[in-house]
Amino acid sequence: MSLVVQKYGGSSVADADAIRRVARRIVDTRNAGNDVVVTVSAMGDTTDELIDLSNDVSGKEHPREMDILLTAGERISMALLAMAVRDLGVGAQSFTGPQAGVITSGSYGRARIIDVAPGRLRQTLDGGDVAIVAGFQGLNQETQDIQTLGRGGSDTTAVALAAALEADVCEIYTDVDGVFSADPRVVPAARKLDSITYEEMLDMAASGAKVLMPRCVEYARRFNVPIHVRSSFSGLEGTMVVGQTEGEEAMEQPIIAGVAHDVSEAKITVIGVPDVPGSAARLFEAVATAEVNIDMIVQNVSATHTGVTDISFTLPTAQVEAARSALEADHEAIGFRELVVDDTIGKISLIGAGMRSSSGVSAKFFSSLRDAGINIEMISTSDIRISVVTRSELVDDAVRAVHTAFGLDSTQGEAVVYGGTGR
Amino acid sequence: MSLVVQKYGGSSVADADAIRRVARRIVDTRNAGNDVVVTVSAMGDTTDELIDLSNDVSGKEHPREMDILLTAGERISMALLAMAVRDLGVGAQSFTGPQAGVITSGSYGRARIIDVAPGRLRQTLDGGDVAIVAGFQGLNQETQDIQTLGRGGSDTTAVALAAALEADVCEIYTDVDGVFSADPRVVPAARKLDSITYEEMLDMAASGAKVLMPRCVEYARRFNVPIHVRSSFSGLEGTMVVGQTEGEEAMEQPIIAGVAHDVSEAKITVIGVPDVPGSAARLFEAVATAEVNIDMIVQNVSATHTGVTDISFTLPTAQVEAARSALEADHEAIGFRELVVDDTIGKISLIGAGMRSSSGVSAKFFSSLRDAGINIEMISTSDIRISVVTRSELVDDAVRAVHTAFGLDSTQGEAVVYGGTGR
Repeated sequence: MSLVVQKYGGSSVADADAIRRVARRIVDTRNAGNDVVVTVSAMGDTTDELIDLSNDVSGKEHPREMDILLTAGERISMALLAMAVRDLGVGAQSFTGPQAGVITSGSYGRARIIDVAPGRLRQTLDGGDVAIVAGFQGLNQETQDIQTLGRGGSDTTAVALAAALEADVCEIYTDVDGVFSADPRVVPAARKLDSITYEEMLDMAASGAKVLMPRCVEYARRFNVPIHVRSSFSGLEGTMVVGQTEGEEAMEQPIIAGVAHDVSEAKITVIGVPDVPGSAARLFEAVATAEVNIDMIVQNVSATHTGVTDISFTLPTAQVEAARSALEADHEAIGFRELVVDDTIGKISLIGAGMRSSSGVSAKFFSSLRDAGINIEMISTSDIRISVVTRSELVDDAVRAVHTAFGLDSTQGEAVVYGGTGR
Repeated sequence: MSLVVQKYGGSSVADADAIRRVARRIVDTRNAGNDVVVTVSAMGDTTDELIDLSNDVSGKEHPREMDILLTAGERISMALLAMAVRDLGVGAQSFTGPQAGVITSGSYGRARIIDVAPGRLRQTLDGGDVAIVAGFQGLNQETQDIQTLGRGGSDTTAVALAAALEADVCEIYTDVDGVFSADPRVVPAARKLDSITYEEMLDMAASGAKVLMPRCVEYARRFNVPIHVRSSFSGLEGTMVVGQTEGEEAMEQPIIAGVAHDVSEAKITVIGVPDVPGSAARLFEAVATAEVNIDMIVQNVSATHTGVTDISFTLPTAQVEAARSALEADHEAIGFRELVVDDTIGKISLIGAGMRSSSGVSAKFFSSLRDAGINIEMISTSDIRISVVTRSELVDDAVRAVHTAFGLDSTQGEAVVYGGTGR
């Protein structure tokens, strides 16, 4: 008997019919001889409706109360789903995050799971029942208050429960068939990947692929939880996100997993920063206090020997004002001349664990962009990723060009495999 | 500094405007120098909407999951109300029943409060904040599950919190101005009572007055919590529900508090029950196992010496089928001939602690009914109440006749005070 953790998002439980469909899938999994734990999000638009309601009443920031309010959404969906499962003849009990032993820490609205005490879930499984757990929430033990996990919180809940229960697999049900080599809305020839490593998935997610959030993949990697990303609307196999098996490298694995893109970021350039030790530290300390998520950072050598340099970084567009305020509040200490904000940038990233041991990847990447007439403004790399920043309106063309150049289009057969090492 | 517990029902928090109005009243109470604990119900129709949702999904009985589902309603209203209070510059925190230390026992959907551990609320008050508590719910410590209290549960929550915190008063806000000498929709001349004893209020509530549920009044009497029933739509003083002060009896208190009526009950007559010891016990044991709430019971002497008798009892119409099934399942052991159900009955009750020490009350009551042409089918009495059953369509006339006869009409000045003792 296997232990399967399943996660269903809001669109999978949007109405009564959808809830009954999900219940049928849970019962089929149970009847196939598996123990089943389910994590569920709030129904459809419930969370947005609750946010609207709070804006009608207040509109100000009330983090503790907002988390109490929003967790009503999962409370509703989990109870209804448990009813629907029970109607199909399988025992089921729903549990809030606190009841399921999900322990959190950090700020309201974006808490982190720090532990899971799965005693009550284990007991429920031992009793033959399906356990249905509210995603996106946990108990802060210091304050004894409920907290929400923020974006991607339900996926992370599922992975955390799978880790704590040593589940055989964590199935993440979504509205797409799996992880694709690029966004199918941009690249019609994108293909579904049968499997992808945690590292690749992390870089895909961090580079703009929406299917899984980085924090969830990071959690899965740390505890080696196999994730199966699959559609709640079909019975098809999706994409397995797993660790890299010994000896597989360069043997069977395609070099490139996929091409990701992201137009949700902006660029801030800090002009005229003193070119002395500690400048960058002071600058990014200021930004860090505003809890801004920095992505790429580029500093050019001050070629003109003026004693000052320019530092550019990218960040979520929504955080631009926070970053700008923090920098201006520290204007004197940092000593820059001016700030330039550019919110019309786009990022294209090529991801593949195989590029560690393959040469020519960078060259092919840049030449394909050149051939498509894409001007490159910033470059950043990790050992399994190359990212460039360009104008946002060029991003779709760039993604298609790179996807084709690396033989990823589904009409082109298998991806090209490069030999040698290094880029 | 006083400690005030306030309870607001669903109609008082039906939308954002209503929530802000309630918040203003809470803040005014706080700013007048009181510590304030608030119990709140779910917004307007939320509970009904959640029930509809569960019917869409399942329609079967899932008591544990239904309680989890329904408690989402108070979760939403309490968080929004806390936000609205905070917006007015007063600190506020919302708490679920379990967080507030409300401990329950019994069945899902109609649990009883068995204890309140008010440590966290006390701490909140000591910190200067208003505590806002979900009504209608508590934690079953055995199962560690949330339970709802059933009808009148939010009022009972407020009284239980007031008792545990030794509050100076428990204010129950409602959509009427207080407790009236009769239902103003039936008796336009009905008048608001300034005060009423627990005993009178209990009998009023048990006899059909909807303003407070008996369980809440019973709880208040046991712990001597003064209840102030008042309107959430006006600033008027309402009705104080209090214990009887020593020496006040027959001195200041009117004999009659009011006239209550109830057309929500039905009558079951069990015909041909063996007239031997233990018959009634067996009959009502059977009914009790079906958890039916019996009101009046009448057994006539078997005048014809046939060795059998008839037993009639009244009960909520909604429980008729449960009672009938229970009796028929035990048909042989009880040994009756047939069951006759009558669901067109109505009950009129005259209530007043003063009738303990007044004569002529019963006589006047029956003569006023006779003069109004009301036929009496059953009679039952307690030391401060006389109730009769008649046809449901005669109830309104009967209530008006009795109300006038006892000088309760607001145009008639003070109620007539009778001397002497006994009825």
